[in-house]
Amino acid sequence: MSIIALLTDYGLKDHYVGTIKGVIKTINPKVEIIDISHNIELGNVLAANFLLVQSFKFFPINTIFISIVDPDVGSKCEPILIQTKNYYFIGRNNGVFSQVLENEIIEKIIVLDNDNYFLKPISNTFHGRDIFAPIAAYLSKGINPKEFGKEINSNYLFNLPLPKPLIKEDVIEGNIIYVDSFGNLITNIHKNILKNELSKYIIKINNIEIKGICSTFSDVRAKDIVCYIGSSQYLEIASNFDNLDKKNPDLKNQKIIVIYKVD
Amino acid sequence: MSIIALLTDYGLKDHYVGTIKGVIKTINPKVEIIDISHNIELGNVLAANFLLVQSFKFFPINTIFISIVDPDVGSKCEPILIQTKNYYFIGRNNGVFSQVLENEIIEKIIVLDNDNYFLKPISNTFHGRDIFAPIAAYLSKGINPKEFGKEINSNYLFNLPLPKPLIKEDVIEGNIIYVDSFGNLITNIHKNILKNELSKYIIKINNIEIKGICSTFSDVRAKDIVCYIGSSQYLEIASNFDNLDKKNPDLKNQKIIVIYKVD
Amino acid sequence: MSIIALLTDYGLKDHYVGTIKGVIKTINPKVEIIDISHNIELGNVLAANFLLVQSFKFFPINTIFISIVDPDVGSKCEPILIQTKNYYFIGRNNGVFSQVLENEIIEKIIVLDNDNYFLKPISNTFHGRDIFAPIAAYLSKGINPKEFGKEINSNYLFNLPLPKPLIKEDVIEGNIIYVDSFGNLITNIHKNILKNELSKYIIKINNIEIKGICSTFSDVRAKDIVCYIGSSQYLEIASNFDNLDKKNPDLKNQKIIVIYKVD
Repeated sequence: MSIIALLTDYGLKDHYVGTIKGVIKTINPKVEIIDISHNIELGNVLAANFLLVQSFKFFPINTIFISIVDPDVGSKCEPILIQTKNYYFIGRNNGVFSQVLENEIIEKIIVLDNDNYFLKPISNTFHGRDIFAPIAAYLSKGINPKEFGKEINSNYLFNLPLPKPLIKEDVIEGNIIYVDSFGNLITNIHKNILKNELSKYIIKINNIEIKGICSTFSDVRAKDIVCYIGSSQYLEIASNFDNLDKKNPDLKNQKIIVIYKVD
Repeated sequence: MSIIALLTDYGLKDHYVGTIKGVIKTINPKVEIIDISHNIELGNVLAANFLLVQSFKFFPINTIFISIVDPDVGSKCEPILIQTKNYYFIGRNNGVFSQVLENEIIEKIIVLDNDNYFLKPISNTFHGRDIFAPIAAYLSKGINPKEFGKEINSNYLFNLPLPKPLIKEDVIEGNIIYVDSFGNLITNIHKNILKNELSKYIIKINNIEIKGICSTFSDVRAKDIVCYIGSSQYLEIASNFDNLDKKNPDLKNQKIIVIYKVD
Repeated sequence: MSIIALLTDYGLKDHYVGTIKGVIKTINPKVEIIDISHNIELGNVLAANFLLVQSFKFFPINTIFISIVDPDVGSKCEPILIQTKNYYFIGRNNGVFSQVLENEIIEKIIVLDNDNYFLKPISNTFHGRDIFAPIAAYLSKGINPKEFGKEINSNYLFNLPLPKPLIKEDVIEGNIIYVDSFGNLITNIHKNILKNELSKYIIKINNIEIKGICSTFSDVRAKDIVCYIGSSQYLEIASNFDNLDKKNPDLKNQKIIVIYKVD
């Protein structure tokens, strides 16, 4: 028994997610379906990347991920299936898997152009139901990926990499790449590019200056702003007992400057 | 193994949906539960109809659907079970299945009045937990529908049909029947009542005039209003890269006029 | 096959809940996961208590409940496992199980301090992924609770009991303990402390006076305020066809006075 994990911007108000699950279960009653999120900001491919990067390695080997975030509904980005050493990824060729693939070994990329495995009639606006769900379900039943279409080279993948921080000696200039539902701001500054003495860093964002990277929220007083290495492995900025993004909604659009202070 | 699919206006903040699942699993650990939506607008029976009509045919044969939308909590609309050729529907006799039944062959309608299969004590306000969940669970275990109560005639069904569009020669006057979470307005104008030359139609709603029915969103420029045949099979109106309902919240209450323009 | 039921304040926008499910499924592919709610008000331990008390008894015997509500993220409240006669409860020792335990027979309490069963490296901010999910998964596989850490005495449990109403002869002074998504206000006045003649009660809250406790919503006219014994077994106050909390958001902070009127 395998797992199909779903990540979409469909929301949870309509029937869309339920319908996709019905399609999958009709084709393969034995496969298990797990939701990662259906509340990605509409069309935000970078947010979809972040959520998938943060979650996929925690799923069992051979999990099939469907990620549907489609800023340009009905556009011509082909539907693709990417098989890596450990997982399968199904979605549109719009960069939605770029960041996952930075750390995965690609084994095969298939353009999903064999409509024998599609639901008919194919709508123009709900490929989640008509293409992605049935392909994932047939794949979970053991159909060979080659059956779904022609193989392509990874050069054909639309690439939307994580913006890299600028590093100049002891100064790092980063960006906010995701805001979670607690209002915590997650940056693109990975802990691996920081030195061990975290207390020696000074963090500047807008006109805010924070001294030292803490272990966790409770290292600062209530309502104070705190910098810490998040469960994401990236530097995060938050307000203890508070929603930093709601309190200061402009912060997420600002550069973040991290300075290592030599004594 | 069979499936129970849930559609309610309970929301996802409280324990209500989880409690229903606990009740079902206690009675039949083997049945699988799939959520269609729990965010139907409170008491909106027409919206529940739309979501169920759009999704039920994509579920495996013999799926048991529970649809709970109860504008008049604790009212006297009896709980019923409808068995059709392919599916089972459990809910209150308040019209919540009217549109589904327009295309299904009814085999049996049972009023759920045998309280041997209810959870005791029965509350006045949470029949989802005390009546609908246990009945669905026992049904999924193979209990004969006749055990749950007395059979009734379809004349006793409260009927809440889809409002039909008015058709006068080349002019169709329709309504918005559902607004999805993207702000797309879905009308009651089915593609089957439209002629093939979709580009020859002119669509009027409020003081907006749209020329031609497109294939999909990306046929128009960003922020432009687009008419297209949706995955629902109905004519839909949306704004590309935008939430039309948020931008123009009054539109959903307006008539939509669709005119076929002979050259 | 057993069940792990989840109750958190993580929300449904991010990857957090999906990641937890991935962790569980990787350790025990056979266990079933059911969501109670992930939309508890952030850090509201009393709300978590209410939702768990209302739902847990409806789940199958041996269900493992994870309840994560952590007002003080990364604080020093130890992670614990409580085994009762019928269920298992996993969470932080911050009172999140206090009200459940008022009616359960405790068999064993374990402090989860054996990090052999944790996910490594352990983050400071996502113990749901790194501690609670793997412990629940291993427990569902049959690992003996004693393996997870040292046993402690129930005196060490942080206690956050349900505030009890004051009773003085025929007058009860209670509080609102939960507001559900319909805006219904749920009090701490259990039906067991009320006399049978419910129509003889007068209920006062703020400057509102309600005569009699009804059976259900439809006993009063639309928009009227109604008092009734809810599915929670507690006295609830609501507005028929309306969201009482939205209409009158201050009510939830008021005392509620219930007076039995002898003729």
